Parts: sequence; C-alpha cells; structure tokens
Amino acid sequence: METRVAGASGEVIIGHDLPTVLIGERINPTGKKKLAASLREGDLSVVREEARGQVAAGADILDVNVMITGVDEVAMLPRAVEAVAGTVDVPLCLDSHNVRALEAALQVCPGRPIINSVTGEAASLETILPLVKEHGVPVIGLTLDDTGIPADPAARVAIAHLIVERAAALGIPREDIIIDCLTLALGANTNAGLGTLEAVRLVKRELGVNQTQGASNISHGLPNRLWLNGVYLALAIEAGLTCPTVDAAQVRFAALAADLVLGRDDYAMRFISAFRQAEGASAGA
Amino acid sequence: METRVAGASGEVIIGHDLPTVLIGERINPTGKKKLAASLREGDLSVVREEARGQVAAGADILDVNVMITGVDEVAMLPRAVEAVAGTVDVPLCLDSHNVRALEAALQVCPGRPIINSVTGEAASLETILPLVKEHGVPVIGLTLDDTGIPADPAARVAIAHLIVERAAALGIPREDIIIDCLTLALGANTNAGLGTLEAVRLVKRELGVNQTQGASNISHGLPNRLWLNGVYLALAIEAGLTCPTVDAAQVRFAALAADLVLGRDDYAMRFISAFRQAEGASAGA
Repeated sequence: METRVAGASGEVIIGHDLPTVLIGERINPTGKKKLAASLREGDLSVVREEARGQVAAGADILDVNVMITGVDEVAMLPRAVEAVAGTVDVPLCLDSHNVRALEAALQVCPGRPIINSVTGEAASLETILPLVKEHGVPVIGLTLDDTGIPADPAARVAIAHLIVERAAALGIPREDIIIDCLTLALGANTNAGLGTLEAVRLVKRELGVNQTQGASNISHGLPNRLWLNGVYLALAIEAGLTCPTVDAAQVRFAALAADLVLGRDDYAMRFISAFRQAEGASAGA
Repeated sequence: METRVAGASGEVIIGHDLPTVLIGERINPTGKKKLAASLREGDLSVVREEARGQVAAGADILDVNVMITGVDEVAMLPRAVEAVAGTVDVPLCLDSHNVRALEAALQVCPGRPIINSVTGEAASLETILPLVKEHGVPVIGLTLDDTGIPADPAARVAIAHLIVERAAALGIPREDIIIDCLTLALGANTNAGLGTLEAVRLVKRELGVNQTQGASNISHGLPNRLWLNGVYLALAIEAGLTCPTVDAAQVRFAALAADLVLGRDDYAMRFISAFRQAEGASAGA
C-alpha cells in the first residue's frame, strides 16, 4: 500500500517494499530551549536552520510542530510552515492537536502534506477526520484512546482498526492512514520494545497500512542512545515501520543499513551514495 | 535449547531466550599481517594480546584459528590454545578443518570447548563428527556441502537437517549442534542478507538449535561497515542467531541493544553496566 505526499517540487512515496522514508522530527520545541525561545519571539530563523540541517542529513519529509506554552499555534503554525516551505522543498507533516492551527497551516502549505495526528479519542476522531477528508491529505493515527496508551499490543492494534474504519466511513482511503503504534521508553519497561514491535507486525498483517513512530523515545533516560535508537529502528523497519519520525542526522545510516540488508537497496547504491555525501560534507566542514 | 560450553573457570550457556553470546573472531590470521607473521615465527604474544583485548571488549568465548600458509596447524593450534587459556578463562572455540590439529588442541584445552567446524561435505561429516562424539563437545555446522554454499535458503536449511541427523545417528545430542547459515557479502548480492535471515528463521523453527554466523562478512567491500554490521547483527539476532562470531569491540553494543529491545535484559542492567565499563575503560586510557 502506498501513501503519496508532496512538497513544493516533488512527490515522496511511502510503502512497504520501498526504501524507508525519514520524517525529520527536529522542528518541535519540546525540550529544545533555543527553538522554543525563538518561536516565542516570533523569530523563524532557528526553524529555517533546522529545516536545512535535517534535509542535508537525509530527511525526506519534515514534521513542523510549534506546540509550546507562550506560542499561539493558530498564528504560528502557518508562519512556520511558510518558513520551512520557503527554505526546503520536501513535503511537510503538520503536527498539532489544534484543528484551527491545522486548518490555517493547510491554507499555506504547498503540495500534499500529512496531518499529524488523529487518535482513537472520540473528540479527535470527530474533529480531525473531517478536516482530513475535506483536504484530501494523509493523516497519522496514534494508537491511543480516551483510556490512554494500552500496554497490550492487541489493544493498540484495535485502535488502529477503529481509526481506519472511522476514516473509511468518511470516504478517506486506507492508503492515506499512517498508523503510529507509539514507542515507549525501555528504561521504564524492558518489555516495551517487544510489545510495540508485535503491534507493528499485527498492523502490517491485518491492515497493511504505512506506519511511523517517534522511534527515539525507545532510549529515553538510557545511555548510548545512538546504538539503541539505530538498532530499534532497524528491528522496527523489519517489522513494518515505513516512515519513522526521527533525527535523520542520528539514525540515517541505521535506516539505510536496514534497507540494504532487507533487499531494498539494489547494488547498495543509496547506502554508498549517502556515505559519500556524508564524507564530502564532513570534509567540507 | 541450551548449548553449554566451559572455560577454565566457568560455564557459558547459549540459548534463544538468553542474552546473546559473543564469540570473539580476532584470533585468526586471515587478513591480519601482524598476527600471521607472529604465528609463522612461533611467537604467541600477539595471540595473548588479542585474547585480552577481546575479553575486555565483551567477548564471551574466543575462537582460536591458526590456519595460514607457513604454519603447521597440528603443532601450533594446541600451543595457541594453551597461550589463550593461560591468558583468559573464557571458553574456547577450536577452529580448523584439520582433524589432527583439532585432536591435539582438544588434549590441552580446559573446560568444554566448541569444535569449529563440520560441514555437509561427505569427508567432513565422516571425520569431524566421530571426534565430536568421542570428546563429547559441541560443534558448529556450516551449511555448505560438496556443491558449495547454496544460494537458496531452503537448501542451506536442508544441509542443517543433514548435519543434525548425521550427528544424532552417532549419539550426538541436538543441543550440541550450533548451525552457521553463512553470511555472504551484500556488496556482491543485495539479496544475500534477506536469504540468510530467512535460513536462520527456518533453522530456528524447524530445528530449534543455537546458531552462529561470521556476521561481519555482510559488509565486505562496503563503506560504513560499523553500522551495517551492527544492524545486520541485530536483525539476525531477532531471526534466531544466538552466538555470533564477531569483533566484540565493534558490535558489542549492537548485540546488547538488540537483547534489550527484544526483552532479554531486565531493567537494562547488562546494557547500562557495559556502557559504564566502556566509559571507565576510555577514561582510564
């Protein structure tokens, strides 16, 4: 099943037998003081800098999130989207719980962006899915509902089914739903990885939809996050993750290596060319 | 199914629900000029140095191989085994095609070593398995036969079945067979990884035995071998590899991360303690 997204100058196709698509996560002020401060001041230079850096590091799509206290999302999300779209031409992922902020951002966003996100919560299904239908764009569906994030993988998969069914009832095609089975921290529960990988396998088998995850949550609070994030990402790609939301600068080679090992990179051309590009960038720096 | 091996001072247990066991690969003169030259001169100081370095880097078992032109294996393998066993106390893996060299090494090796290896070739089955039976030790079975290494995963699995059956006919228990589905270079065939992972899954499902692989062959001739080896290793561990033959200094954290993600490291204790040990070692260096 293929999900098609587009930026100002071209399309990105997400699919199970295609190379992994990286959604850059860094335009998000949570835990980033400099970005948060600049957004509060209405200064978009840090946003532009992050956009350039992530695309140079291999991000195929950029998530844009301005959700932080002291920032009016309805005013700021479209401004940030314009700033990013004016800097790089990759497709965007509009990240907010606020329907009005999403509506405002959709007005100014070029191409075919992703809406991030709808959940299994009643209020979210009722407000986000009609917006998705109206604009005819893909949406990320988080597997949580009014009771929270279920620990049981089967219960998360049931929420994925609910989101797909509710979307279908509005005429939103299944290929426009990207499910997020939610990465929980291994530091809090050493079975969290296994549970999420199991949910990813079930969603792939039962629904066949594309899947994302904020995969670096896996290592929250643990040391040596680079290896832990890279290995988790590779295992999740094997299980069915097709478009992780990550810091491309950190895990690009883990994703490229997983694609190569899994037979999705003929003659290792993407792996080798990314290596040469990274070498060239570090030689130039 | 558990394979028990032992060194001078303790046992190592290899099993599917246990932490991954690393067999250190570096005492092998192929491609190592300094080690090859020292062995030709009968000097075992490089062997001892490699033994110490690998155990410090996290190797649980050490492979000992002295196969290089200009070295008499029958004389040198037992000397190298004595040198390693006099330096570190981990179990050893006696690596030769020469039955007389293996016999001589078994005479001096403490504990319960692994014989590396038997293959599906008629001559190998006929000479190595009786030695394995006589000494009551585990053996690594390579999935190649008189026609070479089959490209088809099912054909490699058939050789694994043959080795297990021929061993059983001599009274060698299945838990003492460690199958090696053989890692081929992705640089020569970008489907080599998928094929071997499929063979590993089938061997686990059909035979349930422990499995090793010289996993770093995967990246032969490619750049950025560290990420490629680490990611391949993690995927192979998920598929059923339990005791890879590797350079522990390079892939220890990939194996530890895979164990942690796959729920085999309660409270991340092994991952965190290895990180602290590595930090301490680099601070001391």
